[in-house]
Amino acid sequence: MTRKLLVVNPNTSQKMTNTIAQSVEAASSVFGDFIQSTTVCADKGVESVEGAFDEAISTYWTLEKVLPLLDQYDAILIACFSNHASVKALREATNKPVLHVMEAAILQACPLGATFSIVTDSDHWRPLLEEGVRDLGAHDKLASVRDAGMTALDTVSLAREEVVRRLVEASRVAVQEDKAEVILLGCAGMAGLKETISSQLGVPVIDAVMAGVCVAAGLLASGGLTSKRAMYTQLEPRPNEVNVPEPGIMAAYGANAAQ
Amino acid sequence: MTRKLLVVNPNTSQKMTNTIAQSVEAASSVFGDFIQSTTVCADKGVESVEGAFDEAISTYWTLEKVLPLLDQYDAILIACFSNHASVKALREATNKPVLHVMEAAILQACPLGATFSIVTDSDHWRPLLEEGVRDLGAHDKLASVRDAGMTALDTVSLAREEVVRRLVEASRVAVQEDKAEVILLGCAGMAGLKETISSQLGVPVIDAVMAGVCVAAGLLASGGLTSKRAMYTQLEPRPNEVNVPEPGIMAAYGANAAQ
Amino acid sequence: MTRKLLVVNPNTSQKMTNTIAQSVEAASSVFGDFIQSTTVCADKGVESVEGAFDEAISTYWTLEKVLPLLDQYDAILIACFSNHASVKALREATNKPVLHVMEAAILQACPLGATFSIVTDSDHWRPLLEEGVRDLGAHDKLASVRDAGMTALDTVSLAREEVVRRLVEASRVAVQEDKAEVILLGCAGMAGLKETISSQLGVPVIDAVMAGVCVAAGLLASGGLTSKRAMYTQLEPRPNEVNVPEPGIMAAYGANAAQ
Amino acid sequence: MTRKLLVVNPNTSQKMTNTIAQSVEAASSVFGDFIQSTTVCADKGVESVEGAFDEAISTYWTLEKVLPLLDQYDAILIACFSNHASVKALREATNKPVLHVMEAAILQACPLGATFSIVTDSDHWRPLLEEGVRDLGAHDKLASVRDAGMTALDTVSLAREEVVRRLVEASRVAVQEDKAEVILLGCAGMAGLKETISSQLGVPVIDAVMAGVCVAAGLLASGGLTSKRAMYTQLEPRPNEVNVPEPGIMAAYGANAAQ
Amino acid sequence: MTRKLLVVNPNTSQKMTNTIAQSVEAASSVFGDFIQSTTVCADKGVESVEGAFDEAISTYWTLEKVLPLLDQYDAILIACFSNHASVKALREATNKPVLHVMEAAILQACPLGATFSIVTDSDHWRPLLEEGVRDLGAHDKLASVRDAGMTALDTVSLAREEVVRRLVEASRVAVQEDKAEVILLGCAGMAGLKETISSQLGVPVIDAVMAGVCVAAGLLASGGLTSKRAMYTQLEPRPNEVNVPEPGIMAAYGANAAQ
Amino acid sequence: MTRKLLVVNPNTSQKMTNTIAQSVEAASSVFGDFIQSTTVCADKGVESVEGAFDEAISTYWTLEKVLPLLDQYDAILIACFSNHASVKALREATNKPVLHVMEAAILQACPLGATFSIVTDSDHWRPLLEEGVRDLGAHDKLASVRDAGMTALDTVSLAREEVVRRLVEASRVAVQEDKAEVILLGCAGMAGLKETISSQLGVPVIDAVMAGVCVAAGLLASGGLTSKRAMYTQLEPRPNEVNVPEPGIMAAYGANAAQ
Repeated sequence: MTRKLLVVNPNTSQKMTNTIAQSVEAASSVFGDFIQSTTVCADKGVESVEGAFDEAISTYWTLEKVLPLLDQYDAILIACFSNHASVKALREATNKPVLHVMEAAILQACPLGATFSIVTDSDHWRPLLEEGVRDLGAHDKLASVRDAGMTALDTVSLAREEVVRRLVEASRVAVQEDKAEVILLGCAGMAGLKETISSQLGVPVIDAVMAGVCVAAGLLASGGLTSKRAMYTQLEPRPNEVNVPEPGIMAAYGANAAQ
Repeated sequence: MTRKLLVVNPNTSQKMTNTIAQSVEAASSVFGDFIQSTTVCADKGVESVEGAFDEAISTYWTLEKVLPLLDQYDAILIACFSNHASVKALREATNKPVLHVMEAAILQACPLGATFSIVTDSDHWRPLLEEGVRDLGAHDKLASVRDAGMTALDTVSLAREEVVRRLVEASRVAVQEDKAEVILLGCAGMAGLKETISSQLGVPVIDAVMAGVCVAAGLLASGGLTSKRAMYTQLEPRPNEVNVPEPGIMAAYGANAAQ
Repeated sequence: MTRKLLVVNPNTSQKMTNTIAQSVEAASSVFGDFIQSTTVCADKGVESVEGAFDEAISTYWTLEKVLPLLDQYDAILIACFSNHASVKALREATNKPVLHVMEAAILQACPLGATFSIVTDSDHWRPLLEEGVRDLGAHDKLASVRDAGMTALDTVSLAREEVVRRLVEASRVAVQEDKAEVILLGCAGMAGLKETISSQLGVPVIDAVMAGVCVAAGLLASGGLTSKRAMYTQLEPRPNEVNVPEPGIMAAYGANAAQ
Repeated sequence: MTRKLLVVNPNTSQKMTNTIAQSVEAASSVFGDFIQSTTVCADKGVESVEGAFDEAISTYWTLEKVLPLLDQYDAILIACFSNHASVKALREATNKPVLHVMEAAILQACPLGATFSIVTDSDHWRPLLEEGVRDLGAHDKLASVRDAGMTALDTVSLAREEVVRRLVEASRVAVQEDKAEVILLGCAGMAGLKETISSQLGVPVIDAVMAGVCVAAGLLASGGLTSKRAMYTQLEPRPNEVNVPEPGIMAAYGANAAQ
Repeated sequence: MTRKLLVVNPNTSQKMTNTIAQSVEAASSVFGDFIQSTTVCADKGVESVEGAFDEAISTYWTLEKVLPLLDQYDAILIACFSNHASVKALREATNKPVLHVMEAAILQACPLGATFSIVTDSDHWRPLLEEGVRDLGAHDKLASVRDAGMTALDTVSLAREEVVRRLVEASRVAVQEDKAEVILLGCAGMAGLKETISSQLGVPVIDAVMAGVCVAAGLLASGGLTSKRAMYTQLEPRPNEVNVPEPGIMAAYGANAAQ
Repeated sequence: MTRKLLVVNPNTSQKMTNTIAQSVEAASSVFGDFIQSTTVCADKGVESVEGAFDEAISTYWTLEKVLPLLDQYDAILIACFSNHASVKALREATNKPVLHVMEAAILQACPLGATFSIVTDSDHWRPLLEEGVRDLGAHDKLASVRDAGMTALDTVSLAREEVVRRLVEASRVAVQEDKAEVILLGCAGMAGLKETISSQLGVPVIDAVMAGVCVAAGLLASGGLTSKRAMYTQLEPRPNEVNVPEPGIMAAYGANAAQ
């Protein structure tokens, strides 16, 4: 029985969406007929998610994009390496599995080594990701977050060799100084670089987008559903939300709740 | 020298905005000429913030509301008792002090007792607030989060006596079973009930909105500024964000960044 | 490309091995040709693992069983719901993915709710599993460990209805008193009961053996390998280990190291 | 309505008391008529608090000084940057707000950055302050404690330029190596140096004495009172304490308890 | 070679000193000639230590008592079940082993069970001891602190049967509800009750005073010395401390430092 | 009354057993007649314990060695500096005190300094010991684990001067960079080097084997017994364990349980 996975790039960059889609395809195809993936991006918002402000904006437009599509898919994967707020919002709106690639990458790293480091784009992201790891309950396994001195957009704009060079350099510091045993590529724009970087480092490297597809496939195979107790309970449709100017969002939320 | 404080209710409820404004006025007036407060609410979004989905929506419209006003105020207080994502987004956009009433209430509770409990609206909010307390780094002082079995909107819709009755009941459990030494009223709609509830409980009670004004006043008095190192660094204006349909947000962000 | 998964029941009970094998088959078949699973049990040791002593004995005989088979499989799953010591020993002996069903169940629970509880057999297991969760770095998400008042062997000896009745009772306490949002069935002998129990509880329930197959499949799909840096480095063959009376173990370890 | 704040330097140094008083005055005056502050020091004890032994001695003499004055003030601020034991003792003796400048500085730092570092006098103070931060429940936000290679007394004895030079140097290490986003000046003798140091560092700097006045003002404005439940319950006067040779302390404590 | 242990009751109660001395003698005699113990109490201060205020007062008089005797003993044991501040002060003043009975009881409990509970006198002590356990770095093993509804003085004033009855009752709650595996008698006045209480509970019970002697003996036997690096470095004698009215303390401290 | 302590080296190296026995004798003799120690090693298994695999193998053979001897001794000390799994297994099998030298060394270090570092053999041991410290609940006091670049076997094979040189070098890094105040020699093969290393470092050094004897002596003197509640409850003899090929282990376990 084929399961349908919706992968959402929360920014509007077509280049990054393409990069993501390639990793998604590669990972999905391994499962044969079991997983059928579709990759989309937000219609509006920010061209890349470079921090907390961008995350807030992109969360809004991700919800606008995903809510009308919820019915057509069996699981949702948010392809932004951050503790992206759209995930908790969507888990309220559905009991289908929803996760972001950051959580997936962490879940895949846990059994592979005593500790992991995240190689992120910029020093601005470092404390945000440290906080995200803590929120996800995984800080005991975090060796460090190290940055590669670039923006998220750079990961798909700079020459691939230059991106790799910076990632390997930051990863080496994580392995040697912070004793990381596994490296997580901490940006969706780094998808597809796993083999190249791993071969230079000598430790396992996680492609977060690929991890996202594989963890989602595992949840779909075991019939995992989002708990509707307490944290992710869905609220009643609220008729008073009449002044919402983007009716697409609230109507879709309400329609879903009414099912 | 008078300092201007902007208080923002991130939802669209006029009733709740009025409730908040009263606590804001009461607290501000204590400081004489030092603090001049203005209370506004989001123009669009949700009528009340009942969970993670609503927080995401209200964050967007809070940013739209606040960004054009940043120039005119010395500090920003978000009057929603949640770890509201607009705060981190706004700290990226300005070096003026920005905080939400949840953090303020915790900061005021710390010196008053060994532990505190939050009395929230519903069991849906409990894990969200537990997570928020952890994110704010204060979980060692948290006795519990207890809920009063209502919605955020109920706090300003139900009879005041009924609201008080439910809050006292939940607070008693926190004091007796969880050994809370201080109670935090965990919803902006509970503003103004501090004295009534405290007199029935025998432990200090924190009105989060009032705490918000007082902590903001303290930061303004000592000249506190948001650090622009790492976590809250402001990004460069990004010309490519042309496809954002709410130009108000991105233009204001960019204008601010260009100063 | 088909991947071969070896599932090992570390005790000698054929009944429990059969129970495990059924869940393994059910989960593997979902992936079509991708996963081919084989379920074996230890040849010697204990009939069921009822605590730390049994874990120590069963670890030895699990190693004896698995080491000669390492070459023939792509991943190893230890089907004992404990932080079974054979996993760390095997990760030293190979770079193929190795995990136990306890870790797998936790990894699958994380994205489905704010917290999880484990329903274990006996009060003797409770502190052992609490310690295991801490060792795995997941205690921030643990609501509680609750026991069902039986032995591990009882799970496959008592009438299925009785086993279900006890598990539902213990799970209800976890959900209502400890606020668990997801329930983990904390014994390999409880495999196959997920649907029955979940339907009575109203929260997601994790079948740890099934979770084990699905997490292993995810790791195989993304090419995950055990890091050989620090924690799981393989030691050199040591010629002096001549006095080991079970040459199968050390010879297999050495042969593996020599590759 | 004017509120009266008593600031107590727990050592006997007049120089340090003067330094403290200047910061107290500067901060108090911002609040106009609201806060009226008085700065005193211990009559006996140690000339400066250089560690745990000095803290113990100075706690005794601080209690002797403050207890007879409790009636005349609305809040008490202990102007020693340590987890000074007089605070907990005084919280037992009154329900008025009592805090030390270390806690105040931390509370003001929390909303301004992801992490803070404390720049203390000597390496002897480092573990004491790390322990104090943990006791105050704030270690998740602590980047580091760094020392400036001097004694507490040096801060008011050495040339001001030299003190600044050492503090800037230690702060730079905290910012660059430990990723501190806010710096706390970790000695009451460093009061008044905030602007000079901040301008050289580029991150916010907290003057702990000034923070103490501002946090106390905030608590006074919101009517904050010390909880008398459990931790800070006041004991009954105990008639058998006849053999206390410093009757000032126990008599004042007893008189207070009898109110 | 006989080693001399000084045991200090920090309060002035002769009754409690006698109770302590009996446990000290019983424990010391087991070691034959190896340990020779002397039990003294403070000359002034409080008749019993009932909270943080009393701890502060008793710390001062404990230092006055112990400092002149430091030369004559090989180790110091403070017989107050609290994180008594005299210990850190004394560790600065000597490199001989110094500890209090609370730390000793915890150290002896660790190898005997997965978790321990402390049965303390009153609910006032509960948060103080929870904080103390955290400061000592042992909170991961703490099941709970439960109180027996009395004062410290009651432990040596009430009928022994009544004291035992209350302790057994509180201990039962700790064992049954909090899952404690070991019980610590959390007051020096409870010395000598271990056997009686243990026989009624069925779990090991720790007499903290006896534990104190045994842990001290262990440190003396292995030649353990207080580290003088950072935390417990001794300060230089400071000639300016002329205004200390209790010359006994500072003179003894100075004399010790000059050695 | 003399108490009998059984010390077990879990590997088969006679050299290491001799090294251990010397420290055991030195420590035991301090207690005069009170402690009578016997040092044995495993009959089969591994020549040295170099990681998790070796720990698993040596646990089995340690149990085989110790179980038949349990009746003849009052306490058991496992002389391997790891969180050796035999300890938990043995605590299930007896209520006599059982501990390993790693736990003993930590317990003795706690009162001597604010933090400790472990100097281990190799970088492979580092994460294993970090994990062990966490499992023992002592990570708040851990400054670091540093390795000396050798194997466990090297500690008794290399020239003593070379071993000392490497240990001093690694310890210096721990003291200077990680701010360790106490050093733990993290291998049983390092027994007897305490004085030499301490004199070069200037901080206290713990000989784990000696610490083991002293902590065991302390527990024996205070009558400490392993709690049989929950964690270390002994299971019923299980007649079905007929297929265990090493009847010595299961028979001894059963015999013990039947007492």
